Formats: sequence, structure tokens, C-alpha cells
Amino acid sequence: MLPLGQRVLQKLESLIDKHMTSVGASKVSLSSITSQALWERTGRYSGHGSEFFKVEDRREAQLLLSPTHEEEITSLVGSMIKSYKDVPLRLYQVSRKYRDEARPRQGLLRGREFIMKDLYTFDEDEPKARETYDQVRLAYNAFFTELGVPFVVAQADSGSMGGDLSHEYHLVSPNGEDSIVKCNECNTAINDELIISEYDRIESKQEDYSAVSPKSAYGKTESSSWYGLSKDKRVLVEAIYPTYSTMQSTPTEISRVKNQVHLPAVRAALPGVELQTGLEDPRKLWQGGFDHMHLTLIDPRLPAMNTGRGESHYATHDNVRARMDGKDILLTKPLDGDLCTNCRRGHVEVLTAIEVGHTFHLGTRYSKPLKASIATLSNSNQVTPVEMGCHGIGVSRLVAAIASIMSDTKGLVWPAIISPFSVVVVPLPGLETAAEEIISKLQFTAYMKGANDKLDVILDDRNKRIGWQLHDADLIGYPIIIVVGKSYEKEGTVQVQCRRLDFNQHVAADAVPDLVSDQLLEL
Amino acid sequence: MLPLGQRVLQKLESLIDKHMTSVGASKVSLSSITSQALWERTGRYSGHGSEFFKVEDRREAQLLLSPTHEEEITSLVGSMIKSYKDVPLRLYQVSRKYRDEARPRQGLLRGREFIMKDLYTFDEDEPKARETYDQVRLAYNAFFTELGVPFVVAQADSGSMGGDLSHEYHLVSPNGEDSIVKCNECNTAINDELIISEYDRIESKQEDYSAVSPKSAYGKTESSSWYGLSKDKRVLVEAIYPTYSTMQSTPTEISRVKNQVHLPAVRAALPGVELQTGLEDPRKLWQGGFDHMHLTLIDPRLPAMNTGRGESHYATHDNVRARMDGKDILLTKPLDGDLCTNCRRGHVEVLTAIEVGHTFHLGTRYSKPLKASIATLSNSNQVTPVEMGCHGIGVSRLVAAIASIMSDTKGLVWPAIISPFSVVVVPLPGLETAAEEIISKLQFTAYMKGANDKLDVILDDRNKRIGWQLHDADLIGYPIIIVVGKSYEKEGTVQVQCRRLDFNQHVAADAVPDLVSDQLLEL
Repeated sequence: MLPLGQRVLQKLESLIDKHMTSVGASKVSLSSITSQALWERTGRYSGHGSEFFKVEDRREAQLLLSPTHEEEITSLVGSMIKSYKDVPLRLYQVSRKYRDEARPRQGLLRGREFIMKDLYTFDEDEPKARETYDQVRLAYNAFFTELGVPFVVAQADSGSMGGDLSHEYHLVSPNGEDSIVKCNECNTAINDELIISEYDRIESKQEDYSAVSPKSAYGKTESSSWYGLSKDKRVLVEAIYPTYSTMQSTPTEISRVKNQVHLPAVRAALPGVELQTGLEDPRKLWQGGFDHMHLTLIDPRLPAMNTGRGESHYATHDNVRARMDGKDILLTKPLDGDLCTNCRRGHVEVLTAIEVGHTFHLGTRYSKPLKASIATLSNSNQVTPVEMGCHGIGVSRLVAAIASIMSDTKGLVWPAIISPFSVVVVPLPGLETAAEEIISKLQFTAYMKGANDKLDVILDDRNKRIGWQLHDADLIGYPIIIVVGKSYEKEGTVQVQCRRLDFNQHVAADAVPDLVSDQLLEL
Repeated sequence: MLPLGQRVLQKLESLIDKHMTSVGASKVSLSSITSQALWERTGRYSGHGSEFFKVEDRREAQLLLSPTHEEEITSLVGSMIKSYKDVPLRLYQVSRKYRDEARPRQGLLRGREFIMKDLYTFDEDEPKARETYDQVRLAYNAFFTELGVPFVVAQADSGSMGGDLSHEYHLVSPNGEDSIVKCNECNTAINDELIISEYDRIESKQEDYSAVSPKSAYGKTESSSWYGLSKDKRVLVEAIYPTYSTMQSTPTEISRVKNQVHLPAVRAALPGVELQTGLEDPRKLWQGGFDHMHLTLIDPRLPAMNTGRGESHYATHDNVRARMDGKDILLTKPLDGDLCTNCRRGHVEVLTAIEVGHTFHLGTRYSKPLKASIATLSNSNQVTPVEMGCHGIGVSRLVAAIASIMSDTKGLVWPAIISPFSVVVVPLPGLETAAEEIISKLQFTAYMKGANDKLDVILDDRNKRIGWQLHDADLIGYPIIIVVGKSYEKEGTVQVQCRRLDFNQHVAADAVPDLVSDQLLEL
């Protein structure tokens, strides 16, 4: 982070501090270096090829760089709490995390070293833990609302975290890696990873796939194959799903060109097979001659068939029609216009989004193996594992996400509360003193109007051409620019610019404090 | 860091920000993971057994955890500056650093993961770089003065950093690992590592060592041996120096019991031998039979002799009398009462101290190998390496050092500016509203009196006995405690306690805002 980005980061952290304090959370700071043994106790250390950075010290101890801190905090808190009187306890930190991503990309959006806010909550029992979860959700909503960026809250998969209650916070952006499926009727937003679409729920407007064959390379539609490998490396999975090979004329049909296999559907259809993710290219294994089981899974819209590939090389299992709980399911990702799987009335919109926050109710997933237990109110002789939650915000990724969704053709655009500076004053040479007077009046008025949280002024007194300075101010993305130029000498007016409010006018210098304070409250 | 320590840390960082801003430095934030290749370019990567933590990623890249950031920042700045117009540039960060200490100890004082402030300065030429160095020294003095802790600035060794100008900032403490030699005449303070005492400068009050023999295990005095190994592992060095073996009666004589070999003197006396440091126990090598050269160095106060040890096992070199530049030098550390090596008039006091800051003029030590060059004013066709400085503050270690030197028998004592909270208000049940009124009046008065930087109030409304709460407040080290108790109901008075100002009185509630604001300004 260079100086301007660092200021954004620090302001974001202050805003997070404010909203964490609102739920009574205290800030801590845990070590980045952690021990592999601790992660083995919760079964989360996965060894070779995992996303852990391994650290080697002079004594060859088994150390890791922490990608997250459930183990560390549970072990710490477990050593300090004894009774139901010691909870609720809410601890958070804003710190660097490390994840050895197979494909780091898009700068701060997916880096291997990043900054996260992680809040951990500890409660006496499950009802209280769920109350805590709801309080944190309200604090998250208040945080993103004060930040002033449009966000979507989606039901999410709790994945390897344990627990059964989880929400994601997203900023909608074409640079996103997540797909959020949002219904126009019931307004539910769900991460598409959680959606398994049943064949009979799909409207009959679907094209006729009966003519589709995986061998036909021509014609209007065809199928594609996706390959995966089981974790025990014994089963090669081939999923065959319908797609188009030629461009269509209407917008909805064009989107079908992007049709992709829906991994959660593949997993759901093969409950016995634990699939490996993050494979570079599993087809290489297939081409190299795979010597265990080859399993072909077929989308219900395609006719049952034999792929006819390489029988001599593979022990080929019977082809399986994609089914779950006795129902046919679709192997493709949800698309715009699909029927809502929740209300079964509305149609969904698929939003590409950047995940910037994630909350989990963890239950006793970590407190049990790490023995973080408390004596209960009802029976002081009995101890029970504490109920936990964890709640993340991707801080550095949020900086990048906001930069990406709010910028325009002239440059970055920052919300006033986290802008490196919210107001830049650019004086012509000789007018610096006049500029400083305007600034000090503005500071007083902003304080009186309650806009001082958002006021952070910089005077650009660099020895450059004024055109260069204004261009630079636009690039950096200061919300408000005040030019103290020739018109100040002639008429006592200054130019106030604000791209977001589409404002660009000469106003009397005396009117600036009120005008700019009001604008800041809007930004 | 738990919540209270984290607040101390965050306030310390804010105070550092203020004083870095005063010298026009901008805050950045560099990656903790760095590449080994970058460190090889400056010759600072020392491979096996070094203090680097090595990091292994999925592609087996050669990565390290940064112990400091000269390489990273020089490489970054080098890619961005082109001309003398782009400097002066001053960049700093407050971030975690990693050093695989052979003997981590004393908690935050010497941990393997710690927090440092590191400022890097870039200037056009050496005179300007030295001006920058002086400005930073003033800012450091202002920082430590505002922090309100007694400190000593000592001339220091620039060690492996390059350059020839270096100062250390110390807090005097029995827990320190550094020895500062301070003269009572010329007031010079120097790290004892920089002092090589000449034999003829030492006053004749020294005891007669002529009777001392290394073989005599009895008698008033005797000698000790220190063993070291050359970096090429070919020379085992034995340094024999005088010491006492029995306790003496007067205080100065008792201190002589602690007499130790002075490593810089050993190095100075053996200019051809590059000694290895951080050896676990070099005597083991000697006992195991060392098969190269065995060199015995003898303090000039001891008679020349042959150690008589193991001639059959070692190729023994002639014994060498400790000399440098033709003069006899002492092999022992400087002690209280020694003649000052600077003014030759005063006598020195040896202070045990904790190093909390270090400044270096680096010159072109890093800009040259990393090609961070600028076109000069005099000749725009010619580029020259930029002149650098680096200036550290051990932030987490400063927290521990302050805790250690300022605490008393009741608990911690924090300077108001970095105390987790500077004032705690403890009300009896039912008096919470009265307490809140006192707090809000105090906040207004502190603002008017300019003490608001130091005011951060917490209301202890926990459901505990008041005695327990006051004991807890003393342990935590809040500078000022206000008890709103029974006397408030009877007489409208509250109890104000301040251990550092030795104040404990009942005062009228109306007098609290003025009294406490004034006290804060003193603390």
C-alpha cells in the first residue's frame, strides 16, 4: 500500500472499529505464525498442496502462517474462561492473513497476503449465540450502509467452517468471482453454490435437448464435459452437460453460451465421492491413462448414452443420470430467468459479485476439539463447550472492490468516509493564505454540522500547473475539489467540483463551509 | 495482544504517526513475505542458521518473512523516482517483522514476531541526507519527550546496515540487554559495543594483576576464558581476561564479579579473523577436538603465558597480547568508574538499558546494488544512487519496556498518552448517572484546556465489589481513578487517586474537571 491507499485502509479500519465497538467487541492482535499441531487438533491441517504457507525455523518446528484464527483464539479463550459468567465475549482483530492461493489474481482482490477483520464470539448456549449472530448482522448492515456502497447480503455455504448458519456480504461488480442468485419475487439472495436446481422445476421454455449428443460438433446445441478427480485419486468423474456452441440472437440465449458445469450439483449427485478442487487440469490425468474408476455423470436434459471413449483404457462405470434425493437435477449453473428455487414463483437474476464479508455460526466446531468449555448456570459441576461464531470482513479486498465499482472514466471515486482526503483545496500561487482561511472556516462549520467525521482536507500547494493538479485530483478520487483561482481575486468566488453529485460551480467563498459540509453528509 | 495491550499499541502508533507527519513522512505498508533473491542482491541473505524465517509455497519459490524492509522499499522507490525533483522522499510503516531469534526471551522484549516502525529517507546528496538525519533525530526526541518516559540517546554501531552515523534510543532498565556508557563530565552516551578501552587510559587505581594466573583457582582474583569461532570455522579463539572469583565487600568491587569479555575488543584485537556470533557453546567444538588453528588472546593486565591446554590436539598459535593500533587494549567490558574514552577527564556510569529505537545514515549501501538512482541537478544525463537513511522504533518492545520500567508494587503505570484508558470512573451501584455527568463535564474542560489528546475515560460499571474494582484499576495502571461513592451522596465529593502524582483526596465533584485536566497534562 502506497500512502494514499494506506490512508483508505486506515480509515476503513477506524470505521470497522466503530461498528465492532457497537456490539461490545474488543480488539486483540494474535500472532501470524501458528503451529501445525493446533490445526491438526481441529482436523483442518490438510498437508501437501493446501493453501497453507509453511514456515521453517532454526529448530525445524512445524509452523504455518495463519490464514484465519479460529484455532488460535479458541485455544486462547479456552484457557481464560471458566464459567457462564465469563461470556458473552466478543473479540476481533484487523490483521494480515496468508493463503497460498493456487491462482492469485486481480491484485488486492485475491492476493496471497491480505488484510482481514475477524470477529470471534463466545456464548453460553445456542439461543444466545444466535442472538449474537443477529446483532453482528445488524452491525454489518450499519457498517456497509455508513460506508455508502451498495451491497447484497446472501445466504451462503458454511463450507469447512462448521455450523449451519452463514451469510455473505457482496458488492456487485463484473470483476467478481461469486454468483449471487436474487429472486424478483421473494427477494431472497443466495450464493449460487447453495442452489441445486431440480429438472421438474425448470419451465418448459427450455429448448429441446433430446437431439443433443456429445459427439455432434455441429448443429444449434451441443454438450460439454467437465472432469474432476476424487480426493482418494481413485475415481475420475466426467460430467456431461448441455451448452450451445454457436452464438444465438436473443440476449438470454447468448448468456447460455457461458453455461458452465455447476460443481455443487455434481457433488450433490455423487454423495459417495469426495471431489478434489483446485486441479490444474484433470483431463491430463485422463489423457495420461487413468487406471482406476471412470464415472460418467449425465445432465437429465441429455439422453443416456455411452461416451464411447477409451473403454480399453478405463474401468468404465455405468453412466449415471444426475439425481439427488430421487429427483433429476441440472448440472449447469443457475442463469438469469430461471425459476426461483425458494418461492417457486419469481424468476432470478444472477449477479456477479465480490465477496467482502462472511459471517458464520460455528456452534461447537472448534470449542469441542480445543476444549474451550464453561460451567453452566444450571449445573456448576458440569462443563459444556462454548458456542461460537466468526465474522469476517476482507479489508484490503474491500478497498479494491470499492475502487473497482465506484471509479469512472476520470479516475477513482472514494466514499467521503474512507477517501484518502475528502476535500482537496487547490490554490493558484499566492492564494495559499486565502485557501487556508477557507479550510479553517470549513473545519469549524463541518464540526457544528456533524460532518467532521467525513472532513479531512489537504492543501495541494505543489509547484505544478493547475490543470495537472486538477487532473491528479480526479485520478486520486477526492470527493470534493475546491479551486481558489483567478475568480477569487476578481469576485471572491471559488470553484467547487464534485463528480459524484454532478456539481461544478463557482460559489462565494463565504458559502463554501455550508455547501461543502452538506455535500460531505451526502457522500 | 489482549484488548488493553492492543489499546496501548494503537495509541503508541497514533503518537508515532503524529511525529512522522511532523517530518513530512508518509505512511505505507509493505508485504511481509519477500523474496530471497532480493536479499541476495544486497548480500544480506546469509543462508542456513540465520535469523530469517523461510517460507515454502506451493511452487517451492524461495521466500522469506521480512525482518526489515530496506531491500523492499529501495527496490520499490527505485522503480518510481527518476530525478532530483522526486526527492526528498520519506516513507514509513508500522508493521510486523519476523526474526528467528536463537534465544527469544522476555516476552515482547525479544520475540520472533514483533511490531516495528521503520522510516526510510531518500535524498539527493549526502549533505541533504545528513540534514534529514538531524530532522529525524529531533522528531525522535520530541516523540520520546511527549511519551513522557526518561530516555538516553547513545552513539551506536551501524553494524551490518552500512553507513557511518547511527544513534540508539534507550530506556534505562535492569531488564535491558544493552549497556550504555555515560560520562559524568562530557555527558556523552555511547553503546559499550563502540568502546575499546586502552590500557594506558585506565587509571592506576586498578588492582595489581601481576599475581594473577589463569591456573590459580583460589585467591582474590583470577582469570576467565571466552571461546569463539571464526566464520570460516578454521580458527578457534580463546580470550583470557581478568575477573574475580570471590565476592568482595564494597559495591564497586562486587560489580567486578560480573566482569565479562568485551566482544568488540576481541574483534578489534584480531582484525584478520571474522568471528561468528550466536554460537550455542563454542567450547563444545573445543572439547570435541578442534582440528584447525587455536589462537589465544591475552588481556594486557595478565602476564604472557602458555595455557598449557591440549597441545597434542590443536595446532596452537603463539599467544597474542590484546593490541589495536599499536596500543594495549582491555578485553573486558567497560565498568562504572572507568575513565571516559571520549573526554579522558570524566568517569563513566554503565547503564543497563533496553534499546527501543535506532537511526542509521545508510548512504548508498542499498541504493547502489538495487539501482535506485536519480538524475542530478548539475548534470541531467548522469544518474547517481540516492542517499538513504533508515530509522526504527521497536513498537511492541516499547510497550513492554515502558510496562517494565514504570510499574510499581501495585501494578502497571502507563503514561496518560498511551494508557488503555487514562481515567477510570468507578461508581457505586445507583450512581452511574452522576458518574456520566462528571465524565461529560470533564470531557468539555479537557478540550478547552488542550488535554483532550490525553483524555480517554472508561466507566467501570461491572457488577463487582468496589474494592475489587479499585484493585483491578491499579493492576491495569490507569493513571487516574475517580470513585463516585458514599461521600458523593453525603457531601457531593468524589475520591480522585493518582499514584504517579502521589495524590489521593476527596474533592468536590465540581472541581474534578479542572483538577483532572491539569493532572493529565502533567502525566
